[in-house]
Amino acid sequence: MLLALIMPSLSLDLLSVKSVRLWGAQTQRSLQNFEIGGDRERMPEAIVRAFGILKKCAAKVNVEYGLDASIGKAIMEAAQEVAEGKLNDHFPLVVWQTGSGTQSNMNANEVIANRAAEILGHKRGDKFVHPNDHVNRSQSSNDTFPTVMHIAAAMDINSGLIPKLKQLHKTLESKSIQFKDIIKVGRTHMQDATPLTLGQQFSGYATQVKYGIDRVLNTLPRIYQIAQGGTAVGTGLNTRKGFDEKVAAAVAEETELPFVTAENKFEALVSLYFCKVYTLYENLVADIHVVWLSERTRIHSLQDKVDILALTAAHDAFVETSGALNTVAVSLMKIANDIRFLGSGPRCGLGELILPENEPGSSIMPGKVNPTQCEALTMVCAQVMGNHVAVTVAGSNGHFELNVFKPIIASNLLYSLRLLGDACASFEKNCVRGIEANRERISVLLHESLMLVTSLNPKIGYDNAALVAKTAHKEGSTLKEAAFKLGVLSPEEFDSLVVPEKMIGPSN
Amino acid sequence: MLLALIMPSLSLDLLSVKSVRLWGAQTQRSLQNFEIGGDRERMPEAIVRAFGILKKCAAKVNVEYGLDASIGKAIMEAAQEVAEGKLNDHFPLVVWQTGSGTQSNMNANEVIANRAAEILGHKRGDKFVHPNDHVNRSQSSNDTFPTVMHIAAAMDINSGLIPKLKQLHKTLESKSIQFKDIIKVGRTHMQDATPLTLGQQFSGYATQVKYGIDRVLNTLPRIYQIAQGGTAVGTGLNTRKGFDEKVAAAVAEETELPFVTAENKFEALVSLYFCKVYTLYENLVADIHVVWLSERTRIHSLQDKVDILALTAAHDAFVETSGALNTVAVSLMKIANDIRFLGSGPRCGLGELILPENEPGSSIMPGKVNPTQCEALTMVCAQVMGNHVAVTVAGSNGHFELNVFKPIIASNLLYSLRLLGDACASFEKNCVRGIEANRERISVLLHESLMLVTSLNPKIGYDNAALVAKTAHKEGSTLKEAAFKLGVLSPEEFDSLVVPEKMIGPSN
Amino acid sequence: MLLALIMPSLSLDLLSVKSVRLWGAQTQRSLQNFEIGGDRERMPEAIVRAFGILKKCAAKVNVEYGLDASIGKAIMEAAQEVAEGKLNDHFPLVVWQTGSGTQSNMNANEVIANRAAEILGHKRGDKFVHPNDHVNRSQSSNDTFPTVMHIAAAMDINSGLIPKLKQLHKTLESKSIQFKDIIKVGRTHMQDATPLTLGQQFSGYATQVKYGIDRVLNTLPRIYQIAQGGTAVGTGLNTRKGFDEKVAAAVAEETELPFVTAENKFEALVSLYFCKVYTLYENLVADIHVVWLSERTRIHSLQDKVDILALTAAHDAFVETSGALNTVAVSLMKIANDIRFLGSGPRCGLGELILPENEPGSSIMPGKVNPTQCEALTMVCAQVMGNHVAVTVAGSNGHFELNVFKPIIASNLLYSLRLLGDACASFEKNCVRGIEANRERISVLLHESLMLVTSLNPKIGYDNAALVAKTAHKEGSTLKEAAFKLGVLSPEEFDSLVVPEKMIGPSN
Amino acid sequence: MLLALIMPSLSLDLLSVKSVRLWGAQTQRSLQNFEIGGDRERMPEAIVRAFGILKKCAAKVNVEYGLDASIGKAIMEAAQEVAEGKLNDHFPLVVWQTGSGTQSNMNANEVIANRAAEILGHKRGDKFVHPNDHVNRSQSSNDTFPTVMHIAAAMDINSGLIPKLKQLHKTLESKSIQFKDIIKVGRTHMQDATPLTLGQQFSGYATQVKYGIDRVLNTLPRIYQIAQGGTAVGTGLNTRKGFDEKVAAAVAEETELPFVTAENKFEALVSLYFCKVYTLYENLVADIHVVWLSERTRIHSLQDKVDILALTAAHDAFVETSGALNTVAVSLMKIANDIRFLGSGPRCGLGELILPENEPGSSIMPGKVNPTQCEALTMVCAQVMGNHVAVTVAGSNGHFELNVFKPIIASNLLYSLRLLGDACASFEKNCVRGIEANRERISVLLHESLMLVTSLNPKIGYDNAALVAKTAHKEGSTLKEAAFKLGVLSPEEFDSLVVPEKMIGPSN
Repeated sequence: MLLALIMPSLSLDLLSVKSVRLWGAQTQRSLQNFEIGGDRERMPEAIVRAFGILKKCAAKVNVEYGLDASIGKAIMEAAQEVAEGKLNDHFPLVVWQTGSGTQSNMNANEVIANRAAEILGHKRGDKFVHPNDHVNRSQSSNDTFPTVMHIAAAMDINSGLIPKLKQLHKTLESKSIQFKDIIKVGRTHMQDATPLTLGQQFSGYATQVKYGIDRVLNTLPRIYQIAQGGTAVGTGLNTRKGFDEKVAAAVAEETELPFVTAENKFEALVSLYFCKVYTLYENLVADIHVVWLSERTRIHSLQDKVDILALTAAHDAFVETSGALNTVAVSLMKIANDIRFLGSGPRCGLGELILPENEPGSSIMPGKVNPTQCEALTMVCAQVMGNHVAVTVAGSNGHFELNVFKPIIASNLLYSLRLLGDACASFEKNCVRGIEANRERISVLLHESLMLVTSLNPKIGYDNAALVAKTAHKEGSTLKEAAFKLGVLSPEEFDSLVVPEKMIGPSN
Repeated sequence: MLLALIMPSLSLDLLSVKSVRLWGAQTQRSLQNFEIGGDRERMPEAIVRAFGILKKCAAKVNVEYGLDASIGKAIMEAAQEVAEGKLNDHFPLVVWQTGSGTQSNMNANEVIANRAAEILGHKRGDKFVHPNDHVNRSQSSNDTFPTVMHIAAAMDINSGLIPKLKQLHKTLESKSIQFKDIIKVGRTHMQDATPLTLGQQFSGYATQVKYGIDRVLNTLPRIYQIAQGGTAVGTGLNTRKGFDEKVAAAVAEETELPFVTAENKFEALVSLYFCKVYTLYENLVADIHVVWLSERTRIHSLQDKVDILALTAAHDAFVETSGALNTVAVSLMKIANDIRFLGSGPRCGLGELILPENEPGSSIMPGKVNPTQCEALTMVCAQVMGNHVAVTVAGSNGHFELNVFKPIIASNLLYSLRLLGDACASFEKNCVRGIEANRERISVLLHESLMLVTSLNPKIGYDNAALVAKTAHKEGSTLKEAAFKLGVLSPEEFDSLVVPEKMIGPSN
Repeated sequence: MLLALIMPSLSLDLLSVKSVRLWGAQTQRSLQNFEIGGDRERMPEAIVRAFGILKKCAAKVNVEYGLDASIGKAIMEAAQEVAEGKLNDHFPLVVWQTGSGTQSNMNANEVIANRAAEILGHKRGDKFVHPNDHVNRSQSSNDTFPTVMHIAAAMDINSGLIPKLKQLHKTLESKSIQFKDIIKVGRTHMQDATPLTLGQQFSGYATQVKYGIDRVLNTLPRIYQIAQGGTAVGTGLNTRKGFDEKVAAAVAEETELPFVTAENKFEALVSLYFCKVYTLYENLVADIHVVWLSERTRIHSLQDKVDILALTAAHDAFVETSGALNTVAVSLMKIANDIRFLGSGPRCGLGELILPENEPGSSIMPGKVNPTQCEALTMVCAQVMGNHVAVTVAGSNGHFELNVFKPIIASNLLYSLRLLGDACASFEKNCVRGIEANRERISVLLHESLMLVTSLNPKIGYDNAALVAKTAHKEGSTLKEAAFKLGVLSPEEFDSLVVPEKMIGPSN
Repeated sequence: MLLALIMPSLSLDLLSVKSVRLWGAQTQRSLQNFEIGGDRERMPEAIVRAFGILKKCAAKVNVEYGLDASIGKAIMEAAQEVAEGKLNDHFPLVVWQTGSGTQSNMNANEVIANRAAEILGHKRGDKFVHPNDHVNRSQSSNDTFPTVMHIAAAMDINSGLIPKLKQLHKTLESKSIQFKDIIKVGRTHMQDATPLTLGQQFSGYATQVKYGIDRVLNTLPRIYQIAQGGTAVGTGLNTRKGFDEKVAAAVAEETELPFVTAENKFEALVSLYFCKVYTLYENLVADIHVVWLSERTRIHSLQDKVDILALTAAHDAFVETSGALNTVAVSLMKIANDIRFLGSGPRCGLGELILPENEPGSSIMPGKVNPTQCEALTMVCAQVMGNHVAVTVAGSNGHFELNVFKPIIASNLLYSLRLLGDACASFEKNCVRGIEANRERISVLLHESLMLVTSLNPKIGYDNAALVAKTAHKEGSTLKEAAFKLGVLSPEEFDSLVVPEKMIGPSN
């Protein structure tokens, strides 16, 4: 009734919601006011599920603060269904809505209220469980939406991207061992250079991916800080003391991830413990979190000052994580490019690597096999770079107590996480795992290379060595022939000096 | 049979396609090899529909060159269904596939071949109509995919973005007329400045949108050039002379857009005629194309040299159009920001504009109404800027005879077109159209402003005028009081000099 | 004296300007308040020179409106010295100052006032010629700075970038003729593909550059519109009617470029005439402007409405031009990458092109020559892409009647123009001009390629052709041997079908 | 002599170097071959100085490995002069050269060789000290240039950016204390919201800057890894075992920064110790390094595998650090925007903050003072975002054993570091330090705000509270009047419920 008074200009017909839907009037109004992009642009599922987790935890804590226990229990049950993705169809709103995500918060409130009412034997829409007064109690879009952003990102990083990057790292490392004895020509400036092993090359790739994992993990301490309890402008108005910490603890328990409430001095300590644990349990992300959780109590005693504004008025943590993904994309772009160039051919390219044949490459050129996994991965990398700029622009445009580019920041980061994770998995499984060295071709190129001349430097000097190489190049001869012809070395001397096996590391 | 020989390592089971689907083995294989991003990442519908148009046109021309007429007719019928979106469900492939879009081309070939076979009374999968030999005849992914990119973009620009930008322009212009007599304080550096009319302000916005339309239209001549007929490396191998021009003519007829085959000298002429027509029929995009089509014959006689490479080995035309959209996004970001700042309040902001109340703004703060349409639009603008970087990076990474970032380039441009168009329409309908001026507030602010002092400059000089303003500022008095107190002007002189109505244009 | 009253807190000592400098107190204050980046970050010289041109023209027009003729003449003389770069040392301010460029405007006013006073026999600093009342008469930073931005950009485009791009285009085209008979293997997906001529490849590059020229030229009509006469908020307050048009005409005469005052309906007409002239005098940019100037009078009569706001409150025209440069950078990145890949070697790369040897490539590897010009050019392209994002972000952040990111927008566009122009000239002169084809290597690769098999498609069908290629690939044999062994073609049939010369265009 | 044989086509005249210059033929040749951008584009001074440090350290170690001691000493002396910036004028090369920085390495070699020869009483150019055989001994551009990139970045971060960010953080924190009792209206969506203190607002800014410092410091462990010893392709060819570690140790000693040679497993450990030290000595960056150095020996014993490729073939560490700067830029953009919006006015804006008056704001509007420091800072932020894209694009384009976008990557990162540091210092000193609260204005706005209604929610419910606010809004009355009129609360009840001081935190 009151709603009609408030919004008299909106006809009720317009806003009527089909009874089969669990959402209510506010969701429906958003659906009509933001016809932008269609179904593909729905708020990411990870956000919807995180709303389920958060609303469940908030209800749990609200019962402690006086919410009717049976209503609280029904809300928790309904929220659990949202967390499990069972009610995805009831979240129709697109990313391109209000910049605070208010309408998605209300969508969650409405769906959970209606579903909780059903669980309690009431009808949808009778507001027995009230979306605002019960489900959203002690909350505001301005703290719930940032909180679900952090929950969704942390979960996707831990269970999506990181395991897939680790698998890729492992496979690259195993290739580096497999190829450790294959000496090949190096290439700098796209030009022939001194030799290295194919194993060294893959070891470089493995290191890039390893550091990429570190880069993403390093941003987590700031993602684990959540804004819940700040309500409208970060001050915690209309909440009770302790609400923020209790919700954070409940979310941590629910997700088995070390979420904490936002604060000031906490950051450095988080880094410290994160690093310590990381070193102890290097390959066991799961274990890290166990230790994390056990450290929480002690760490909490060190808190002195809540500063939630940095999580609602700005989203620097997301810009930072997006920057880490951008770096990972840069690494993977380089790796995938190298692999396709080294696999180019079959007869008119470099041809040093043999890539798996997954599909016919061309509809007109029979027998051609293309580095399609490299192509998909590099496209994903370009997209991640673009998404990063969108996040950067959006992150820089916050004003006063609220950044109102939340949905785009969330959707781009989650999008990048998903694409990078999936593309790494596909690349690892359908490409890297099956790469073989074309040993014959590698050997031919190595021994044709003029750059073995470098090993003559210490013996005959830079300028003479240059002359040998130039002569061989000009005359199409071998280095040995040129050195002999110029009278600087006998063939025997040459052979004792030019040994590729000795050129792949420092000398004693 | 031969396929099994070529790909013996792929088990047939793995690739079995459920009979309900029209797609074939190559599509199925891509589906399994590229599990990246899920259903949301499907190739844009505009690309699928454009494949329908292209394959229909190619079949029509192939009949002229000897394709069996009944098979040709069935292909055209099936392709028409694709063009109409009836077979969308049979195009399951994601953007993140081979960088040439080969697999989507094969998807189209397979679906159309199977559907055409059905039309002719045969069973799916019996290859009575062959995906390669019939549907893809005289074509290669390397010319079809760039061609459908151009068709999809041209259609979306003409029937999606431009009409919506024009509507927004029209509404802004009508607001500029509605507000032409409202004199208000100007603001530079966020600081009070000399006055202008609210109409002038909206006229500035209208001009920005108008130029944005021009910017997008200006890129069309290069989008109307299509690569079809270039086949694998742009040379037209395995096509017959004239095939390229005939297909382009058929596409032009089918779409009522002036597509032409790629060429060298043509560009400047296209610009000329485009501009001429544009001037004659300024508001009638449809008419432009009628004239265009009538000009085609004459223009064609001037062609001397096919240069399709610039359309397959690079996608500069898409980078260019994306740049135009980036400029439009920059304009709209500015406009939407201004409108929300001017509408800020209700009591502690600038409060000069009253925005339509579309929904309650906050779940905790009753009575608050937020500029949500501005927020959705500015988020879209940030996304378009990010997409532009993705297109730029992808466009710069082409090598030799084929840029293999085609799907990402296509999807980002089409994504930006869709988002910008939809967001403009939403913004126009749900915000701009209903904006009202808060005349009372505007008047109060105008007369409080110290910047009216500027009109004293010509009379009492810069330094004295500054002193008057400084004094009023310091003492919290009016300019008139300060001028009198400092003895530089009598109240009567002041009143005759400071007339806001005279400050909104040059003097005689 | 008054100044001291206004700013009592600033000690005079602090602001004392050494007598050798022509600048005054406001410049000096900016110098002290913005110690950001040091000398390298000085406002670009092109902006300083454009201030000279504008102030000269403004003085000329101001004399018509009543400025003392002898003072006007002295200002014009002093401004001419600025325009010629003779007083560059007196413009010490950096880009990172007030976002309106006010301080650089005052720098110009102060330097010109002092120099004009000197010319008239007065001392510097005695304000005989007043920086504000005389030099800046009827002007505001808010219209002068945007105007010099447009003047500087238009001049740099016309006399810097375009001629250098044209020279590069010409040389690429001459290479395409030089190489027109060299048939080589094509490469798609980095893999061997059907053949084309090296001439066709360079023709593709030439076309990309040609279109790039068009893209930049297409943005000029909006650059030729200047804001002068809008003063503080675009309304023309404190100017007299006609001032704007007279200044624009004076600037057009001074620069021989078709500047006009900003307006609404003008845009399409400008495009029309630009294109017409462009077509008539395709290679003679100079001539275009002659015609332009003659058209100005008639065009002016069609103006109906000044709309300067779009040039001061926003800088969409610069974002647009930056977008054109971004597209040019994308094209050049592709071209330079191709050239260095095709020139890779000397023995372990593709080796199809021989690049000029300009310098020794490595300090440790004698005899190595690197594609350094390609490297410099691609680095420049990456910088232009970055600059474009800076311009985009800056352009989107304007508020109300003034965008206050003017200096960064100007400096990035001018920076991109300079770098692109210089890098193109260096690349043309030190690389492209001297490229030679390695005919022997090209021929060997062409005849080793399996992709000639494509020409068998029409004869033996797609699947059989694929089998031949696969067999040859597997057995390391030639296509001819494989075809014979499989019994699909006799050697004679093979030779008559596989003729590279017939594979570089459509058949009859 | 040999050089002439190698490059016979280059006339000696062309390459003659004026005797006053210390550089040699290779530098001169680069100067002529890369006329791109002019003097402004010279390689950053930080790179030149870092070359001095590195060459000094390399000479020191080379003496241990057999380099003539007197020559070694002279090289060290000459290199020290370079490190101190005394020979800057002898480094004329621009950024836009070969992508490996080879020519700048040779510039350093030539200058130091000539200067060392002079020190030993020989003439310039007689190669008594040989640029390659002596100065560049055991080095390659491919390991020296990446190494100086890391040295320069680490030094600029430690002595430039971080101290300036810390000063800004300190001042923001002191403002947050100064303003802790000022209750003001909050703003979300640009709309009036519930109150907070001005101190809370500045505390949010301080936290953003504090985290920004952490973000930059977190990237240092990877910057402290240097490639020296990898020579041409990262394998250490032509060096002796231990050379890499000795050079790293020497650089660490010279710079008092904890540089180490590149390796695989080292990364996590570095993070651990960094964090530990950071916590212990939070505000004393200098002390950190002392501890660092003492930890080096023990850490070194844990190394197992050199992997220098990740530092020469890619520059992910720079992309990562650039990403951290991008995040800092996003934070500062938000802070500076807020401050200028809150300082808008003097009469028609928000007017809550009073910014220092540093200069007259306009040349036409007397008495106007603009937020120029905010403008300079936000422009710098936009530039840093653009530079980040340039670094990203450049970083993603490395191929095989060498990324050849080194100079652009180095120059953009160093550019961003310099601009951000300087702009922060200027902003702190000329703006933040002097900000005062306009207490009167803040109080007026707070009590006019309708959003105090939120504190009625728990008492009268969401819907009734909304009605009160709506009524007051509609009738222009106060909340108290509206509540009384609607009969929901007596004035006394209202006063006891609506107490701004109780609205700035959670309740008990």
